[in-house]
Amino acid sequence: MKYTAEINVMPLKALLDPQGKAVTSSMKNINLDTITNVRIGKHITLEVEALSKQEAEILVDTACQKLLHNPIMESYDFKVQEAK
Amino acid sequence: MKYTAEINVMPLKALLDPQGKAVTSSMKNINLDTITNVRIGKHITLEVEALSKQEAEILVDTACQKLLHNPIMESYDFKVQEAK
Repeated sequence: MKYTAEINVMPLKALLDPQGKAVTSSMKNINLDTITNVRIGKHITLEVEALSKQEAEILVDTACQKLLHNPIMESYDFKVQEAK
Repeated sequence: MKYTAEINVMPLKALLDPQGKAVTSSMKNINLDTITNVRIGKHITLEVEALSKQEAEILVDTACQKLLHNPIMESYDFKVQEAK
């Protein structure tokens, strides 16, 4: 069965996010100063071939741990669903 | 009222995503060759002060159009909800 996963990798809350800070200040320049606290991370989509949703989730979690996120700076969460 | 928005900015389907392609090949090296078609974009969270959800959505859409996405290479979608 084919599954699709949507993964969000975000900078840890405790850490400064310089890219987000820069965008937050730019919001003021385009008259959107009601927008604050911008944080920027990665959104990753992928397809995975697995026998069950559970197996797909284990594969995606392994990919996050080994390759997609840096545990020192980032946290991740993901959703797996059957591909249409 | 305070709202939070979650924005996903992804490379357009029609375009090559070199970062995603590189990660797809790396999956093979760590024995995850059932994972394919990796695409990598940005995940942006922000807070917005607005009178209604509708107003918040308009503000977030303006931010995406003016600052957060590059229409030549990327598409975006977002969800706005009341901040807890």
